[in-house]
Amino acid sequence: MKAFGWAARDSTGVLSPFHFSRRENGEKDVTFKVLYCGVCHTDIHMAKNEWGNTTYPLVPGHEIVGVVTEVGSKVEKFKVGDKVGIGCLVGSCHSCDNCSNDLENYCPNVIFTYGGVYHDGTPTQGGYSDVMVADEHFIVHIPDTLPLDAGAPLLCAGITVYSPLKYYGLDRPGVHVGIVGLGGLGHVAVKFAKAMGVKVTVISTSPNKKKEAIEHLGADSFLISRDQDEMKAAMSTMDGIIDTVSAGHPLLPLIDLLKSHGKLIMVGAPDKPLELPVLPLIFGRKVVVGSCIGGMKETQEMIEFAAKHNITADVEVIPMDYVNTALERLVKADVRYRFVIDIANTLKPSS
Amino acid sequence: MKAFGWAARDSTGVLSPFHFSRRENGEKDVTFKVLYCGVCHTDIHMAKNEWGNTTYPLVPGHEIVGVVTEVGSKVEKFKVGDKVGIGCLVGSCHSCDNCSNDLENYCPNVIFTYGGVYHDGTPTQGGYSDVMVADEHFIVHIPDTLPLDAGAPLLCAGITVYSPLKYYGLDRPGVHVGIVGLGGLGHVAVKFAKAMGVKVTVISTSPNKKKEAIEHLGADSFLISRDQDEMKAAMSTMDGIIDTVSAGHPLLPLIDLLKSHGKLIMVGAPDKPLELPVLPLIFGRKVVVGSCIGGMKETQEMIEFAAKHNITADVEVIPMDYVNTALERLVKADVRYRFVIDIANTLKPSS
Repeated sequence: MKAFGWAARDSTGVLSPFHFSRRENGEKDVTFKVLYCGVCHTDIHMAKNEWGNTTYPLVPGHEIVGVVTEVGSKVEKFKVGDKVGIGCLVGSCHSCDNCSNDLENYCPNVIFTYGGVYHDGTPTQGGYSDVMVADEHFIVHIPDTLPLDAGAPLLCAGITVYSPLKYYGLDRPGVHVGIVGLGGLGHVAVKFAKAMGVKVTVISTSPNKKKEAIEHLGADSFLISRDQDEMKAAMSTMDGIIDTVSAGHPLLPLIDLLKSHGKLIMVGAPDKPLELPVLPLIFGRKVVVGSCIGGMKETQEMIEFAAKHNITADVEVIPMDYVNTALERLVKADVRYRFVIDIANTLKPSS
Repeated sequence: MKAFGWAARDSTGVLSPFHFSRRENGEKDVTFKVLYCGVCHTDIHMAKNEWGNTTYPLVPGHEIVGVVTEVGSKVEKFKVGDKVGIGCLVGSCHSCDNCSNDLENYCPNVIFTYGGVYHDGTPTQGGYSDVMVADEHFIVHIPDTLPLDAGAPLLCAGITVYSPLKYYGLDRPGVHVGIVGLGGLGHVAVKFAKAMGVKVTVISTSPNKKKEAIEHLGADSFLISRDQDEMKAAMSTMDGIIDTVSAGHPLLPLIDLLKSHGKLIMVGAPDKPLELPVLPLIFGRKVVVGSCIGGMKETQEMIEFAAKHNITADVEVIPMDYVNTALERLVKADVRYRFVIDIANTLKPSS
């Protein structure tokens, strides 16, 4: 099947038009026309080979929504015309403990939406492209009430923060959660946590985000991480913290904010090790843990929760040929809060 | 009440004879004659003020067993002649969430057995001394079948490793646990885990501990942490790791040994931060957590489990006046595996 998108060709990470092919729609597969695709920070890491595992050309994009154009003979959950989405995964082994427990995201043989190698040996390519094909197991329904442009980022940013809030019991009234960093992940974390009835404190280096965090996103309070008096007054008050920051940063001030048995949940991905003080962990039985997106069942649940509670990302919709500028702006955190590419209207073979 | 023991006077950490007083036995208090006291690595940290919070003179010792000589009018659980023990705590607030959940060890106002300040404002002093007095809540029964000398170290070393094995579900057949470091804590961790039916792998820098670990302590296997081939072959095989090492060491090789959702449990206390790689935590939802001894209810449970399964520490019993030499040897890990001071027979006012 012919496909067209924008690909990175080398570690400059600059994207340019790229003709390629995808497999024909198999009996368990769903093919869909891509309408929108969110721009995730991972797209930059991978386009620039910052994790050292990129194969070029690489078509990024794993916050993909569209409308179904073809379904295989054994597809059970989807029909032509359905609105659907794909997040970070398109394959797994289906036989390990994680797959058996709806945690395909932790399958040792998980196949990521782009930058992976599919079962047939071909490289996977992402949603900065006109068409997607995937096994129906890795496709989610998008409810009619969820806007497709602002809903797209939920497929990575949304599930990344929703899953640990649920798994660690940080999803109920009476719980106090800190959200570190108010970017693509952080701003939807605030929205999900508030919809769950949680008390939310945003922790940021930028005092100028306070008004936005409280008045627009609905956070209960705001801490400037460099303000030692503010941080000290908030010590031992939080049940959990979702840390979305992917740059290096000190962990001790965050650990100090936790109550005993509190969880510091890392969802940002610093490329260098962070400094971990051990005694504060020991004296409070405190936890530092990573969390990586979510399984397919939970991703569908998250999308339905978002539709029910009118949760979407705050997005800046851009044309395809603006993507390189968007990536540069994203590196500088110059976006509130997520770029989404209008693929259907702006990705043209002539561009 | 007059008391006599050995105390550190300054940050040299050298101990010498010391006359002091303890409070009179109150209505909820139990007084006991000290028979044996274990020598814990914490005793060195505190005697030398390595954590910066020591007040001198300081009588160390928090692995204390003895025989009851007096009980207060409202004491319910003990009578004169009972064999009893005190571990790391002698007080807490009794009203916080942790105290309500039998986790006095995580009470923000926990009072440690030595180096703390008691409710009445007096400094607490440890078990390198002839007599102890404490609220009965912080005293445990020692079953007749448990040897008092080799049982004493269970009150700190034992509960420190027993508690996380239980709390993290690492206490049943089918589970594979790594034990890092084969010292005072590590060697009893192997014994407890084996008694629970767990598969145990000892991870050590010292190849010469292999025979001991497997033949004497009953470990199922042994990994030399510097042997990259061995470590690689064991990747992703462990449900949990108890890390007893208090010197700086790399965490990544240990994190790599864990299955997804596995727990790296820190019970050693390095004084400097360790390097924490974040991506390996994220991709496996892996956990790094601290754990600090255990609550009083669990300590009693641990002692009964030990008695039932004939678990004691391997000890070298020493006279009181050997303690400074013993502390020097402990710094060099030159002991298999715990020094225990024979207080009753060797602590003499004339010494």
